[in-house]
Parts: sequence; C-alpha cells; structure tokens
Amino acid sequence: MTNLRILKRFLLYRICLNKFQKLGFEKVYSYTLGEEAGVTPEQVRKDFSVFSIKGSKRGGYDIKHLLASINNIFKQDSERNVIIIGMGDIGHALVKYQGFRENNINMVAGFDLDPSKYGKKNIIPVYHPDSIDKIVRDFDIKTAILAVPESAGQAACDRLVAAGITAILNFSPVILKVPDNIIVNYVNLRSELESLFYFI
Amino acid sequence: MTNLRILKRFLLYRICLNKFQKLGFEKVYSYTLGEEAGVTPEQVRKDFSVFSIKGSKRGGYDIKHLLASINNIFKQDSERNVIIIGMGDIGHALVKYQGFRENNINMVAGFDLDPSKYGKKNIIPVYHPDSIDKIVRDFDIKTAILAVPESAGQAACDRLVAAGITAILNFSPVILKVPDNIIVNYVNLRSELESLFYFI
Repeated sequence: MTNLRILKRFLLYRICLNKFQKLGFEKVYSYTLGEEAGVTPEQVRKDFSVFSIKGSKRGGYDIKHLLASINNIFKQDSERNVIIIGMGDIGHALVKYQGFRENNINMVAGFDLDPSKYGKKNIIPVYHPDSIDKIVRDFDIKTAILAVPESAGQAACDRLVAAGITAILNFSPVILKVPDNIIVNYVNLRSELESLFYFI
Repeated sequence: MTNLRILKRFLLYRICLNKFQKLGFEKVYSYTLGEEAGVTPEQVRKDFSVFSIKGSKRGGYDIKHLLASINNIFKQDSERNVIIIGMGDIGHALVKYQGFRENNINMVAGFDLDPSKYGKKNIIPVYHPDSIDKIVRDFDIKTAILAVPESAGQAACDRLVAAGITAILNFSPVILKVPDNIIVNYVNLRSELESLFYFI
C-alpha cells in the first residue's frame, strides 16, 4: 500500500512546482525540485517512478504535466466531500480555511454535541452526531476530519467507521484503533509545536 | 543534529505512555510501546538510547521515569513563550487551543496587519508586526507560529529571523528560506487532508 509519507512528498513537490510555474519556468530537473523540496534528486526520481511519471534525460520534467499528474493522484478534479466532527475552535477554523475552500474540497457538514452550534451561525450546516450515518450515506462521503477532545476521540472514530468513512484526518490527541482498511492521518498540534522546544 | 522525526516519535510515545498510566500500568516494554505507537520495538530502544534512557531487561521501562525524561527533552517545566504571526481563523484557533494552554505553553502576543484585530477582542494582546522586535526582545522569545497567507509567508519569516526567533512552526503554505541555524516545522493543513484523497 502506498504510504502517507510518499504522498506528502508529492504534495510538497506541488508547492514547489507551483512556485516554479509562477516564476515562469516550464521545465524542472529532479535536482532543482529536490533542492527546493529538501530531498535528494534520487528520491524525486524514485517517487515519480512509483506513479509512472516520466521525464526526458536532456530536458527534465514538464512542470504542467507534473502538476496534472499530481492533481490526478489526489483526485483534484473530483468533488471531494468531507465532514467534520467537533465544531470547537479548531473545527470552526478548518471549515473556514481558504486552503480547503479554494481547492475543490467541499465541507458538507459539521457535527457537534452542543445544540447551540446547530443552525445558521456556521457557514456549513451543523448537526447532532446521530445524523452522521444519514449524511455519510446521502452524500457518499468517505473522508472525515476529527477534531473532538481526547476523551471523545475513539468513540467518535468508531461511529465514523461504522457509518462507512474510510479516511480520517485526526486532530484529536489520541491514537485511534481502526480496522486495517481505514487510513488515519494524524495532526497533533501540541506535538508539532513542542517538538521545536527541544532546540531552544 | 537531532532531527524533527525522532522528536515527534517521542511526543507520540508520550501520548501512549499517558494512556498506559491512566490504565494503571507502571512499567512498559519496548514491544508494547512500539505496538501502540506503530513503530518497531527496535526503533523504540534505538530512540531511547539516543537520549540515554535506560530500562532493565527483565522489568521494562518505568513509565513515570520515561514521561519525566520526555518532558525534560521538551523543557516542559520551563516557561515556553511563543508568539503568533497572523491572527486569522487558524491563528485565532491556535491561541485558544487547549492543548497549548494546558501544557505550560505561554502565548505571549499575536501580530496582524489588520488594526481591527488589535485590543481586547482576543485573549492575548495583538499588535502590528512593527512590534515584533520589541516583544521578542522583552520576553526573550525564541519560538514563533507563522499563520499568514502564502504571499506574506517569506517576508514574515525574514522579519522573525531578524528579530532573533530560531524556531518556527509554519502553517503558511510556502517553503521558507532560512539560515542554517533556524529550525522550521511545517504543518500544511491542505496537504494533510489531500493526502487522504488518494485512498478514496
């Protein structure tokens, strides 16, 4: 199974390629891309070969073609529906996050136990978690963001898996137990910040 | 130089160890910890040896001692001052994030170009970026969170480095050019979510 690490490198390559394109370049060498992304040129070529992306020895890789290939990997042209569980500060910020909204990512609904969050105060509809099953089914949703407190993380995850969610972006500081066919990507904000304190 | 990857594994170990402790355990084997954290027992032992953490062959590692060692690595008992650049939705959510507030992380100030954000609407003082130098000096701050739009990322970063910041948690979707002695940890929220769409 393709692992998350290689996929995240492709998303890093995309950031670099967009920058090169803005600067007016049309071709790129694995050396240049690797330098910008902080990986070796060998790694770049190896990653590309995994997804059968070819360049010419002399001319390098065509940036437009590379970007199209990468967008294809991540289904950029499909409607990418997502629900979000937990409408606290992080959940709320993610719903409004331009990086999602501008890139064909469709936040379908939020879920929260707190009834004061239901209704039109948010920019997406917010429901009680009892409605997860119905929304997931109606909109054929496979991806969820989990942003609930630690104590609620595993129960919310179980509920998502039972509803048919197969991919979870987890902001809750808990290691989730999931069946083998479910993919979980972790973002632990506390750890991301604290890892820096070692260097102070 | 110790890299971020090993440090993040330690922060993952901490999540697991806290869980074990809550469950009433006092000792843990590298096998058990590795299983919970999703790494091999060899990796656990190798990581521990980097920081001279020792266990006994028979009894395993003492959880309380391990947690103290990990907290020590991340200076948990010091005052850990942080500033945040960009008080948009993400910046605002991070300032209020319980995972920071509950763990001896002190958000000293926020900075934003928008004057409507200054004053008492926020739970920390918010200033114009012109004040970065003074605040960094007055509070001896080494760590900053960058949460500005892509176009403003590099300029804001340059300003932080000039002020004396040495560690940056970067939420802006831009690869920062920094001197060798500056450490940058990237959180690209769009990439974290998009990496999951491959599996759908």
